[in-house]
Amino acid sequence: MKFTITKSNFLDGLNHVSRVIAPNSLFEILKGIKIELEKDKLILKASDSLVSVEYSVDSFEDDKEVITIEEEGQVVLPSRNFIEIIRKAPTDLIEIETVGNNILVKSGKSEFNVKGYDANDYPEFPVISKENSLKLEANVFNDIIKETVFCTAPNDQRPILEGVNFSLSNKILTATATDSYRLSRRQVTLNDEDSNKEFNLIIPRKALTYFQRMIENGKDQVEIFYENNRIVLYYQNVVYTVLLISGNYPNTNKLIPTVFECTFVANSREFFSAVDRVALMSREDKDDIIKLVVTDNLLEVSSQSKELGSAVEELKVSSTLEDEKFEISVSGKYLKDAVAAVAAEEIIVKFSGELTAFIIQPSDYHREIIELILPVRTY
Amino acid sequence: MKFTITKSNFLDGLNHVSRVIAPNSLFEILKGIKIELEKDKLILKASDSLVSVEYSVDSFEDDKEVITIEEEGQVVLPSRNFIEIIRKAPTDLIEIETVGNNILVKSGKSEFNVKGYDANDYPEFPVISKENSLKLEANVFNDIIKETVFCTAPNDQRPILEGVNFSLSNKILTATATDSYRLSRRQVTLNDEDSNKEFNLIIPRKALTYFQRMIENGKDQVEIFYENNRIVLYYQNVVYTVLLISGNYPNTNKLIPTVFECTFVANSREFFSAVDRVALMSREDKDDIIKLVVTDNLLEVSSQSKELGSAVEELKVSSTLEDEKFEISVSGKYLKDAVAAVAAEEIIVKFSGELTAFIIQPSDYHREIIELILPVRTY
Repeated sequence: MKFTITKSNFLDGLNHVSRVIAPNSLFEILKGIKIELEKDKLILKASDSLVSVEYSVDSFEDDKEVITIEEEGQVVLPSRNFIEIIRKAPTDLIEIETVGNNILVKSGKSEFNVKGYDANDYPEFPVISKENSLKLEANVFNDIIKETVFCTAPNDQRPILEGVNFSLSNKILTATATDSYRLSRRQVTLNDEDSNKEFNLIIPRKALTYFQRMIENGKDQVEIFYENNRIVLYYQNVVYTVLLISGNYPNTNKLIPTVFECTFVANSREFFSAVDRVALMSREDKDDIIKLVVTDNLLEVSSQSKELGSAVEELKVSSTLEDEKFEISVSGKYLKDAVAAVAAEEIIVKFSGELTAFIIQPSDYHREIIELILPVRTY
Repeated sequence: MKFTITKSNFLDGLNHVSRVIAPNSLFEILKGIKIELEKDKLILKASDSLVSVEYSVDSFEDDKEVITIEEEGQVVLPSRNFIEIIRKAPTDLIEIETVGNNILVKSGKSEFNVKGYDANDYPEFPVISKENSLKLEANVFNDIIKETVFCTAPNDQRPILEGVNFSLSNKILTATATDSYRLSRRQVTLNDEDSNKEFNLIIPRKALTYFQRMIENGKDQVEIFYENNRIVLYYQNVVYTVLLISGNYPNTNKLIPTVFECTFVANSREFFSAVDRVALMSREDKDDIIKLVVTDNLLEVSSQSKELGSAVEELKVSSTLEDEKFEISVSGKYLKDAVAAVAAEEIIVKFSGELTAFIIQPSDYHREIIELILPVRTY
């Protein structure tokens, strides 16, 4: 293998694929990045065995030569050190040549001879059937991930809760995540062409987090191919192959209350800041308890810590109440996460009882998003 | 105690003094910040028992009222949480009032009742005699610290090496630090008025690091009062009291070679970058060995790692040689630290033998700085 490549293009690819690498992988070779030089492009591959990523660099970019290919071939690079070698290279053009599994890197007067691994020892990525697919705008997919992934359970005893459930039925794509203390659900209505597609998948948090980072500021579309136990995500020059979480995701629809004894509408930023401040007194306690008291168009947010002291703040809201007063205790962190996810100027908070789950939504319902939180019992 | 203060002024002071606090201090009260409200100023105090800092906020700043003082008094704040409470306060004016050791904080509709500590339990800061003092420009003192402190020994068996030795004699202030593998020495000639002052002190690294951070972009002068076992540093509105390291600092002058069998002059940036790149192959080895080979106006920088591979780079230099070739092995990190400390466009590197310490200086000697490094034996 022998080629010359523009430093920035090479570095972008290396940095991108290296993100999925598990630095403490059991398999030495999975700490590396496989590069495959074909006749008109360079492909970079990395995997942590659950998420695999493939990144292509075409030899020409808008008629500008990015890679000069002299001899095709493939090798596995030791990722961590190699990326730094490229990053610190003194010139804009980098010459790569392999001699066996050794990689010679030349840049100006700097020469490296880097020990690599045999490309034949690198596992083949699975091939997926292209029968079932769905297209989503990158920015919509980005929103869906951001709005749900924070509610997945960290290292839960039930692995299914470590992923986000994506289900498609009657043109409605529903993404749901819950750690069993709170839940986030976002729905999107798809185009007519997708009207008879159906699926029900659990995508692991880790894969979604990587993918979201890539499409964060993205235009274009994401194309998703799905099978029973895996999906492949295509976006621009990158392909992610993801092993799905197997199992049946719980039916969470029945958890969402529909009858309410108290609601209030508040300015999101004001509510978030008040909770954020008051939580300074609760955040170090295990339950991180914030108390909300709703009276006529007034919300009191407070907390109390034996050790630190207490905090209280009042907010003007628009409330509806069955009784004179409604009180509930809730985790400050969950409250902040939910308000941030709803990302609306005004939110509506709807309570169905002091000990039952309550929901937070945009006050104008302009996005189909529901945040559900279980209160904390304080007695 | 009762006062109203501008958020930014209060926060600047709290942030400043909190830096010296040892979060795992044995003494609960030393995790706090003592505030003393006098008739025309607020004084903030913090200490880790070796370094103590005192920060004053005057009630008026250029005729603008910064603090409205209603009732004098003092209390000790729980630093970590309190700073966040002030940082997140919703308004620019903050009202503070104590009720016993409880601190009421009001800002807009937000109210905190923070548990503090009894100010009487906070240790008194030592008072130093103002007999012996010295003034230094802040930017000069800043340079001296930066140029030496990195050579102090981390947690050495000999505590004296954990500080920088400052000695004054014949109007020359000499700052020396060594970890016994390398040494950095900076000298400054003082004004005539200081001609008969003399001292020989060891200032702990930690104190210098705090102090340097404060004067980093500073104008004005630093005034230093010194006694046998402590110094007090005055800078603008801040006073640092520092317990010195006791003991006799070794005489390091005799370590600095004066006869050389090889020298080279190189562009600092080029040399640093070459070492930085080549060190990518050595930095994970215990000794981090970089090999330098000087021939006629040429320097070869190289490294070799069993595991990772090898790197080599050539640099044009101006060399003087007794033999045809001079070779030496040295820690890549020490080399980079030394070149960075010398901070000159061109450096001169002077070798007196392949197994003896060598020195690095600015090629035009415009600053009295010497970096000394012991080579590594490779056989």
